[in-house]
Amino acid sequence: MDILRGERLSGPAPESAEFTGSVADDAPLIAPVVKINMAHMLMLEKNGYVKTSDAAACLKALKAIPKKFKMDANLEDVHMNIEAFVIDRAGGDAGGQLNLGKSRNDQVATAIRMVARDKILEIAKAMEEVSRVLITLGKKHANWVMPGYTHLQHAQPVTLGHHLLAHNDALQRNTKRLLQCYERVNACPMGAAALGSVVLTIDRDYVCNMLGFESLVENTIDAVSSRDFALETMSVLALAMADLSKLAEEIILWSSSEFSFAEVADEYASTSSIMPQKKNPVVAEMIRSRAAMAFGDLMAGLSLVKALPLSYNLDLQDLTPRLWDSCNNTLASLELMGKMLATMKFNKERLESSVETAVGAADLASYIAVKKGIPFRTAHRVVGALAKKSADSKEEFSKIVAKHLREASKRIAKKEVSLTKEEINALLIPSSNVNRKVAKGSPSPREIQKMIHARQEELSEMTSIVAKKKSALAKAETSLMLAVGKLEGGEK
Amino acid sequence: MDILRGERLSGPAPESAEFTGSVADDAPLIAPVVKINMAHMLMLEKNGYVKTSDAAACLKALKAIPKKFKMDANLEDVHMNIEAFVIDRAGGDAGGQLNLGKSRNDQVATAIRMVARDKILEIAKAMEEVSRVLITLGKKHANWVMPGYTHLQHAQPVTLGHHLLAHNDALQRNTKRLLQCYERVNACPMGAAALGSVVLTIDRDYVCNMLGFESLVENTIDAVSSRDFALETMSVLALAMADLSKLAEEIILWSSSEFSFAEVADEYASTSSIMPQKKNPVVAEMIRSRAAMAFGDLMAGLSLVKALPLSYNLDLQDLTPRLWDSCNNTLASLELMGKMLATMKFNKERLESSVETAVGAADLASYIAVKKGIPFRTAHRVVGALAKKSADSKEEFSKIVAKHLREASKRIAKKEVSLTKEEINALLIPSSNVNRKVAKGSPSPREIQKMIHARQEELSEMTSIVAKKKSALAKAETSLMLAVGKLEGGEK
Amino acid sequence: MDILRGERLSGPAPESAEFTGSVADDAPLIAPVVKINMAHMLMLEKNGYVKTSDAAACLKALKAIPKKFKMDANLEDVHMNIEAFVIDRAGGDAGGQLNLGKSRNDQVATAIRMVARDKILEIAKAMEEVSRVLITLGKKHANWVMPGYTHLQHAQPVTLGHHLLAHNDALQRNTKRLLQCYERVNACPMGAAALGSVVLTIDRDYVCNMLGFESLVENTIDAVSSRDFALETMSVLALAMADLSKLAEEIILWSSSEFSFAEVADEYASTSSIMPQKKNPVVAEMIRSRAAMAFGDLMAGLSLVKALPLSYNLDLQDLTPRLWDSCNNTLASLELMGKMLATMKFNKERLESSVETAVGAADLASYIAVKKGIPFRTAHRVVGALAKKSADSKEEFSKIVAKHLREASKRIAKKEVSLTKEEINALLIPSSNVNRKVAKGSPSPREIQKMIHARQEELSEMTSIVAKKKSALAKAETSLMLAVGKLEGGEK
Amino acid sequence: MDILRGERLSGPAPESAEFTGSVADDAPLIAPVVKINMAHMLMLEKNGYVKTSDAAACLKALKAIPKKFKMDANLEDVHMNIEAFVIDRAGGDAGGQLNLGKSRNDQVATAIRMVARDKILEIAKAMEEVSRVLITLGKKHANWVMPGYTHLQHAQPVTLGHHLLAHNDALQRNTKRLLQCYERVNACPMGAAALGSVVLTIDRDYVCNMLGFESLVENTIDAVSSRDFALETMSVLALAMADLSKLAEEIILWSSSEFSFAEVADEYASTSSIMPQKKNPVVAEMIRSRAAMAFGDLMAGLSLVKALPLSYNLDLQDLTPRLWDSCNNTLASLELMGKMLATMKFNKERLESSVETAVGAADLASYIAVKKGIPFRTAHRVVGALAKKSADSKEEFSKIVAKHLREASKRIAKKEVSLTKEEINALLIPSSNVNRKVAKGSPSPREIQKMIHARQEELSEMTSIVAKKKSALAKAETSLMLAVGKLEGGEK
Repeated sequence: MDILRGERLSGPAPESAEFTGSVADDAPLIAPVVKINMAHMLMLEKNGYVKTSDAAACLKALKAIPKKFKMDANLEDVHMNIEAFVIDRAGGDAGGQLNLGKSRNDQVATAIRMVARDKILEIAKAMEEVSRVLITLGKKHANWVMPGYTHLQHAQPVTLGHHLLAHNDALQRNTKRLLQCYERVNACPMGAAALGSVVLTIDRDYVCNMLGFESLVENTIDAVSSRDFALETMSVLALAMADLSKLAEEIILWSSSEFSFAEVADEYASTSSIMPQKKNPVVAEMIRSRAAMAFGDLMAGLSLVKALPLSYNLDLQDLTPRLWDSCNNTLASLELMGKMLATMKFNKERLESSVETAVGAADLASYIAVKKGIPFRTAHRVVGALAKKSADSKEEFSKIVAKHLREASKRIAKKEVSLTKEEINALLIPSSNVNRKVAKGSPSPREIQKMIHARQEELSEMTSIVAKKKSALAKAETSLMLAVGKLEGGEK
Repeated sequence: MDILRGERLSGPAPESAEFTGSVADDAPLIAPVVKINMAHMLMLEKNGYVKTSDAAACLKALKAIPKKFKMDANLEDVHMNIEAFVIDRAGGDAGGQLNLGKSRNDQVATAIRMVARDKILEIAKAMEEVSRVLITLGKKHANWVMPGYTHLQHAQPVTLGHHLLAHNDALQRNTKRLLQCYERVNACPMGAAALGSVVLTIDRDYVCNMLGFESLVENTIDAVSSRDFALETMSVLALAMADLSKLAEEIILWSSSEFSFAEVADEYASTSSIMPQKKNPVVAEMIRSRAAMAFGDLMAGLSLVKALPLSYNLDLQDLTPRLWDSCNNTLASLELMGKMLATMKFNKERLESSVETAVGAADLASYIAVKKGIPFRTAHRVVGALAKKSADSKEEFSKIVAKHLREASKRIAKKEVSLTKEEINALLIPSSNVNRKVAKGSPSPREIQKMIHARQEELSEMTSIVAKKKSALAKAETSLMLAVGKLEGGEK
Repeated sequence: MDILRGERLSGPAPESAEFTGSVADDAPLIAPVVKINMAHMLMLEKNGYVKTSDAAACLKALKAIPKKFKMDANLEDVHMNIEAFVIDRAGGDAGGQLNLGKSRNDQVATAIRMVARDKILEIAKAMEEVSRVLITLGKKHANWVMPGYTHLQHAQPVTLGHHLLAHNDALQRNTKRLLQCYERVNACPMGAAALGSVVLTIDRDYVCNMLGFESLVENTIDAVSSRDFALETMSVLALAMADLSKLAEEIILWSSSEFSFAEVADEYASTSSIMPQKKNPVVAEMIRSRAAMAFGDLMAGLSLVKALPLSYNLDLQDLTPRLWDSCNNTLASLELMGKMLATMKFNKERLESSVETAVGAADLASYIAVKKGIPFRTAHRVVGALAKKSADSKEEFSKIVAKHLREASKRIAKKEVSLTKEEINALLIPSSNVNRKVAKGSPSPREIQKMIHARQEELSEMTSIVAKKKSALAKAETSLMLAVGKLEGGEK
Repeated sequence: MDILRGERLSGPAPESAEFTGSVADDAPLIAPVVKINMAHMLMLEKNGYVKTSDAAACLKALKAIPKKFKMDANLEDVHMNIEAFVIDRAGGDAGGQLNLGKSRNDQVATAIRMVARDKILEIAKAMEEVSRVLITLGKKHANWVMPGYTHLQHAQPVTLGHHLLAHNDALQRNTKRLLQCYERVNACPMGAAALGSVVLTIDRDYVCNMLGFESLVENTIDAVSSRDFALETMSVLALAMADLSKLAEEIILWSSSEFSFAEVADEYASTSSIMPQKKNPVVAEMIRSRAAMAFGDLMAGLSLVKALPLSYNLDLQDLTPRLWDSCNNTLASLELMGKMLATMKFNKERLESSVETAVGAADLASYIAVKKGIPFRTAHRVVGALAKKSADSKEEFSKIVAKHLREASKRIAKKEVSLTKEEINALLIPSSNVNRKVAKGSPSPREIQKMIHARQEELSEMTSIVAKKKSALAKAETSLMLAVGKLEGGEK
């Protein structure tokens, strides 16, 4: 008989049951719902609401639920499937107590948070792995000169290491966001029941601790109706995917025959047997498109919760698959990005030869301003005139400077200025140029090494935070299973 | 003459200049760009790159820029307008040094962050004010019984205080998110120049401190190209507006003649001279729609940055007005929400009389299970049978319980059970019901008082954080102006 | 051996294959890809590129592909799986010709369009069914008076029929959009090959016709790279779901105990055995949330295609599941909405008794203006004064009018005006009020009947369009299978 | 005195008035609201509800409203401002009749549609202009060979004309969508009043015709509450901007020094005086970012209307500025795109020299399959082996084919095959390759010419549709002003 509808006669139309049921999406919730039922039952027994033997029977039945638990769609969702299983195994007297003092509303919110926190830690780990790769690559290519772009035009010389570390810094900020978000995800709604708690003296803190949560979602209406933890997770992931899409875009550009800056390993490209020189950077394309998917998931989620009155509304059920979608896409994108980056080859010769001396023009202007006492804006104009001459004549900019600086400065700045060949080279030969950059964070190999050191320290710290959180969850699970074992085994 | 284009002949087409220029949106950036120029000039003078007299002339000119500085669209943006003004005032020798060692790219990123941090603190303050109102209302209505809803159906009795505090808890989480986001916003890109810094020995830390920033955006490519700080701000605001839209929706529902739970003050409603009984909750409608605007802004922003290669691309310019839009809409929505809530009247009689005794049915089942030793699921079924009888006969549920519990329990649970009138009332009279809830976070006035106390403490703490941040910014500004005054006054 | 990679050594990493493969989402494409291969092979044989016996062997193998064709993820996608199957069945000499003159790029675009056109016609049919229900309900409730709302406040009397027909009109516009979109979906990319067609004399028109398409996507680059047909479909569905969400919202409101305007049938609600009076309108909630899902799908899709260079990029692969998601959600939402509406019960008494006489105030003002020669704005003020008196005194508005009109008009309009009881009733008794509305489209039963007549005609017309399109597709399929049978059977 | 609030005492709080008022956004509505008032007044006079002299006074006052009408924010919106102006000019007796038989709800919906239809026609014209440019460019570059890309990798040879026409075809589909959308925009809500029409015998068809509308939005509830016309417009524009962003992206790529395929004219680029070789394709970047803006506007709009109950809610007010934003951004983007394209220079030498002979490999395989009787998949493998040899040895693919085809075919296909030098060149020399493509829509100059012809015809047709619609609107306006003039001048 239908556990919930009980004595009511008419059941749902099959298409209605299918449309509103969640069994199809509930698989990830099985394990957490089992644990919640265990922790809750331990608490009921501890507080004297359920006989020890009944509790033991329930716990035994709960332990017997297989990992690949087959759910019956007629029982609506994971909650009713598990209750039905326990009643079947442990009998109605014991199993009938399973839902005393709780409801599907608090249980589902708790279970989603349990899955989400695991996924967040997995993603944070994957982020750290990509950071590790980027830092390693940054170190290796700290002095590989390449064009620095604005508007996809060559603007100043930088190094490949410097460029890759810019991506790393964005990534590390995302990791921090995710770990701050974790605090709000890892809070326990259990005890809220439908929305107004129950008339029993339940111990919310006990259940909270047994399930590894760091805090309660205290207000019981808030506990069942808030999904901001999911939306925040999705928005952090959207930001992370946006940043990842930028790196993916560059890998696609750099793999083109026009750029030829880098080559993706065969394992992370699709190749063509008929055009083997063609390597389609399909993994990078997919990461790029997954960013759009993450944006769509977030928009779906925000629009879904907009203007919903309190407390629980079934709309919220649709949010969960979007959350998993965002998590899974981000995790896969990070893992693939890490592996693709680690196996990519960069073309040093091509990168270096792409940097024309003209991209040092702005630095030349600064130098002249400072060394020769010409106002910067005027020096800028002098150098501009030389650059124009170079562009018009197609003669190398550095040569034009050597030849015409004196005349141009006289004409424009009313002051004759000249530079030695050494000075010109120091500014315009790309590798010398980047070496002259002494400001914090600049593309000089020395600054890059300093940044790498700091990033590595930060990475260690974050790695240790994730490890601690993982270990706290594992410890809670051990405690829970120990308590279950004790009670079930009659030790208590 | 065009400062930038210099000796180049052909200028932009007028429609192109209008399409790509930002003068129309740059007004909020005037004040920060002036300060940046000041701090940067102080640094240049300190490090010996600009003569003291030239620096003084520039600073004097910068100080002379009026609050309502009129910008010339032909000069593209705020940066060139200010440089032109300074050159005009201080002469080409001094003013021509203004842009030595910096670029529009680092300057605009810095200026946006300066405006954003101010707006974030304003919004945080407004959030705190709404929290203050909600907590006050929660306290005042801690024991006003009302229906607790799931699926917009009456589910359990709660109190108005409990309900309003659920909104507060969501709001306080958003305040925390915003303050965590602030740390990432309040970081300084100055010194990055176009993207690869400059060949001078500039002091990034000095400029950073003078402008009140807490840290550098160290990697110079990252400094000019990252806008995740803006996207994060917009996503936190989208979450906050989503939560606010839920409260707005309830105010709209509660203001309907069907609900009649609350009445918005005339000042925050539109009224009709011809139907004065009609009060359109237009402020609440507008807040609801502003949530959608915030989602749109975020979507625009995410989609804009997707797949952009490093570093600066002009696309980023379009992000800024969306950021201000989100900030301004959220700020206005919060301010109006606070005032509207503070002046709303709740209809105690209507709220209380809406709660039918039947909504205590679930609690009755728990009670019977616990007190009479019937498995909860069976007790649930017994109570369900009584509720059905009540629904069919239209006789009050509590009366049906009194009359038929004995018979129903015997039939269904095979165990004859009865409750005293006192027991029934304690569970089914709504005010007694909520008083019996002893679990943490439940709707009993006692728990509500505890939560209020904790929320007030948290609120004080957050208020003090915001105050400290504001004061740090003010202090930095004072220092900057002092240093400007000294140098300009020749004290140095 | 790997068909595609051929002599290349290194294959994709397994996680890369999984990340970039589409086998998991390709099931809906099996049937159309089989048909495309058939039509293409018939064309190759017709144009003399493939021997009749080889063509027959291929066609036989293609016919043998089971509906539940099991695909091997190592073969990347549906295209390679089917080619491998045919090579296996028909041998390498025949099967090796299958892909002559075509590519996965044109084939997948064609297959997606074939599935999409079927889904569009299904959805259009479902829309028509909901229209049918709304029109029937509109007819039945043409003279059931209810409050007309603005700002969720009672504004003017309308009828339930009029209100429901407003939803129908929005729906019929969406059906028209969808059918216009169909024209652009039902165009054939085949023959474009990878992007630049092939060096054979292929007959694109023949394949186009055999597959039931109405036109070619002529330019071959456009053919493989354009997905605007999918985005247009998704945007039309987003609009349709937005409209459906508004109806769903009203069903949820009307089902609340505060409104009690309507009751959803048990089959389309979730009920509680313990609170049988509680009927959660879960189907309506789900439809409401599916609107948000459709918005998210559209945003994902738009953001995905943004700034993609021509022609095919793998990103496009991610668009397809979102298109199916939008189609399936809309179809299910429509089907459930139709059934839910058809079985809903409206509460006539409650609807009628909700309409207070004061909502006729604006009409009263118009009447006085016209009949008594007082400027409308002044008449408005006179009626406003009476309404205020009614609101303050809580005395029925119509009684206040009868008593105080003369005095108020004299005071405010400087003209003494009075109305007979009959006149007052005709305007203020809701059912009389709506009957007095003679303008086109107004809530009078007479106008409603006219609109119903016109809507029914339009509905018939649209039904016949959908039927014709369905029949054209069926006819094409029959022709195709006939041609296949002939060639395979050696008749040719 | 406040026209609307009349005798009510307490007004709105100033911040509430500002938050909910629309004066700041109402400027585009002034002209249409004036016309609506004229048409409505003509109808009232015609139907005998307003004295001719009063009507004349109102019309005269309406005509006196200046183009740059200054609105008073205290009067909430454009509607009240215009009524106040007319009452002031024409006196209370005449001006007080202005709003008889209408309401702000129908008036604003009508006015928005009037502005939207104008903007749609402007945008359609701008689309046609871009089509014209693309077709002209396509014609001019019909035989300029360039690499055809998939995955941003060279895949097959195409021509620049073919490539540009692919963009044109997408654009022409968008123009069609927009013109279909126009039909639904150009429908008249007037006569719906607040939502339930009025008790007068108003002539909706007359007003509809006088305002140039093609049909009524008949159901009066639908008339005031539906904004799907705006959402459809925004979604068509989002699709159009998505397509435009793809072209913009290519212009950015092609302008990079790595591609160097094209050069934007100075007028549509930002240049640097110091690096004159650097041309930042800022117009293209802006168009790319405006696509994201359009997506955001659409998202805001969809989310705004989601789950709004009927009929008018103030939320709808926020939709209008987003609609203008989408329209204005699209219009500007199209105009700039057209001008930028028309002045761009393509680098023929660079385009042609980019096409390596290896991109003809797939065509070579087809040719061998067909001419030499080797199954396509086997021929594919033979060619693949040669391509690999070419890639490994860095020797030109066409030379490798000449040397090794015989051996490779023997080894792999077990059949010795050879091709003449002429055959090889015909397939592998890019310009010969494209000339061999005979299928409809392929990149051969002959096919391109055919397509250009057809596109030109379609363009003429669409141009004439837009012209007809514009002329119909102009004619209606003339009729309206004539009728106004007649009545006002006492001719009637």
